[in-house]
Amino acid sequence: MFSGAQVSLYPMTDDFVGVITGALAALDPYRERLRIETDDISTLIVGPPEVLFPALRDLFSAAAGTGRHCVLSAAISRGCPGEPDDEICATPLLGGPREPLEARKQAALAEVARAPDKATPTAAQFSLYVMGTGDHMDEIYDCIDFLKRSGVFGRSKNFCTRLDGDAGAVFAAIEAAFCRFGPPEGHVTIDLTASANSPTPR
Amino acid sequence: MFSGAQVSLYPMTDDFVGVITGALAALDPYRERLRIETDDISTLIVGPPEVLFPALRDLFSAAAGTGRHCVLSAAISRGCPGEPDDEICATPLLGGPREPLEARKQAALAEVARAPDKATPTAAQFSLYVMGTGDHMDEIYDCIDFLKRSGVFGRSKNFCTRLDGDAGAVFAAIEAAFCRFGPPEGHVTIDLTASANSPTPR
Repeated sequence: MFSGAQVSLYPMTDDFVGVITGALAALDPYRERLRIETDDISTLIVGPPEVLFPALRDLFSAAAGTGRHCVLSAAISRGCPGEPDDEICATPLLGGPREPLEARKQAALAEVARAPDKATPTAAQFSLYVMGTGDHMDEIYDCIDFLKRSGVFGRSKNFCTRLDGDAGAVFAAIEAAFCRFGPPEGHVTIDLTASANSPTPR
Repeated sequence: MFSGAQVSLYPMTDDFVGVITGALAALDPYRERLRIETDDISTLIVGPPEVLFPALRDLFSAAAGTGRHCVLSAAISRGCPGEPDDEICATPLLGGPREPLEARKQAALAEVARAPDKATPTAAQFSLYVMGTGDHMDEIYDCIDFLKRSGVFGRSKNFCTRLDGDAGAVFAAIEAAFCRFGPPEGHVTIDLTASANSPTPR
C-alpha cells in the first residue's frame, strides 16, 4: 500500500524561509524511513503512517517553537488505487482483517494516551475521507465518536472536526483516525490543518 | 444540497493580519449570497459553487496582489450527508441527471475558456475526492483528462494534480472539476492549495 502526504509549512513572518529551513532539521531522525521531495507548493513525504505522523508532528512543533504564527497543511493519503505500491510504505498497522469497532476505538484511545508531550499547544482541524465504499459516513461517525473520547476533541465544524491540545496527543489522534477507520486496504485520505500561535481569539 | 468550504489565507509576512484584512474586501460583492463565519483556524464559507469559487479566486488574487508570498488553502465540500440542506446553497449547476462524460468535459473546457483574466499568476494543486461510490477513480481519471486539455494543467503529482496559470482560469478549472465530476447529488470534496509569489523555484 502506498501512503504519504503533500505537506506545506506556512510561517506568517517575513523570515518564513528561515523558519522553514530551521524546522526541517526536525525531520532528520525520520529521513531514512521516508522519501522526501520538495517543490514550490509542497513537500511530498512518502512512508508508513507510524513514521509520517511523528515526522509531521515534530516538523510542526519545531516551527511553532519559534513563537511565530505557523500553520502546517497536509493532504494525507493511503491506499490510493492510482499510486504504485512502495516498499518504504510497508507497515504492520494496516492491512490485517478489520477488528471489531470497539477494539479499534480502544486501540486508538490508548495511542493518544501514550503520546509524548511536545509542549506545543496546537489547534487543528481535519476531514477524514473514505473512498470506494457505500458506507463511508458510518466510519466517519465512528471516528468522530473516538475523537470525542480522545481528550483533544474541540468541536464539530462544518466539513471537519477541530482538535485542541498538545501536538503529541493531537497528531496521535489524527494518526489513529487515519489508520483505524476506513477499510485497512481502502483508499483513505485526510485534509489536515494544524495551527500554532494564532493571534485570533478562538 | 449543502456546499461550501473551510478556507484559510496564509500571507508569509509579519503583516499577515494587514494582508488578510485588506484582502477580505474582495468578498464584498459576494457576501449577500454567502454565509461566512471566521475562527482562529479558518473561515467557513457556505454557498453555491458558482458564487464560492469566484469569491475564493478574488480573495486569493487580492492577497497575491500585495506581492507577498501568499497561500490560500481550502477544504471544499458538496453533498456531505452529515450536513443539513441550506437554501443559500441552491444552484442550477448540480442535481440534474448526469450528462454523458464527453458533454461534461466540453462544458468544463468552455467554462475555463471564458474565465476572466485576473492578472494573478497562480500555482495550485488539488485533490478531488468522490465518496459513496465504488467507481470513484473513474470519475477522477476523467477529471484529470479534462484538466490535461484545460490549458492550465501543470503536472500529475502524488495525491494531487498541479495547475499553473492565471487565477481566473485556474479557479474556473477547479470549479468545473468540483461541479462536473462525481454524481450530481454525491458527496464530493476538494483539498485545494493555491500559491502566489513563492521564492522557491518550481
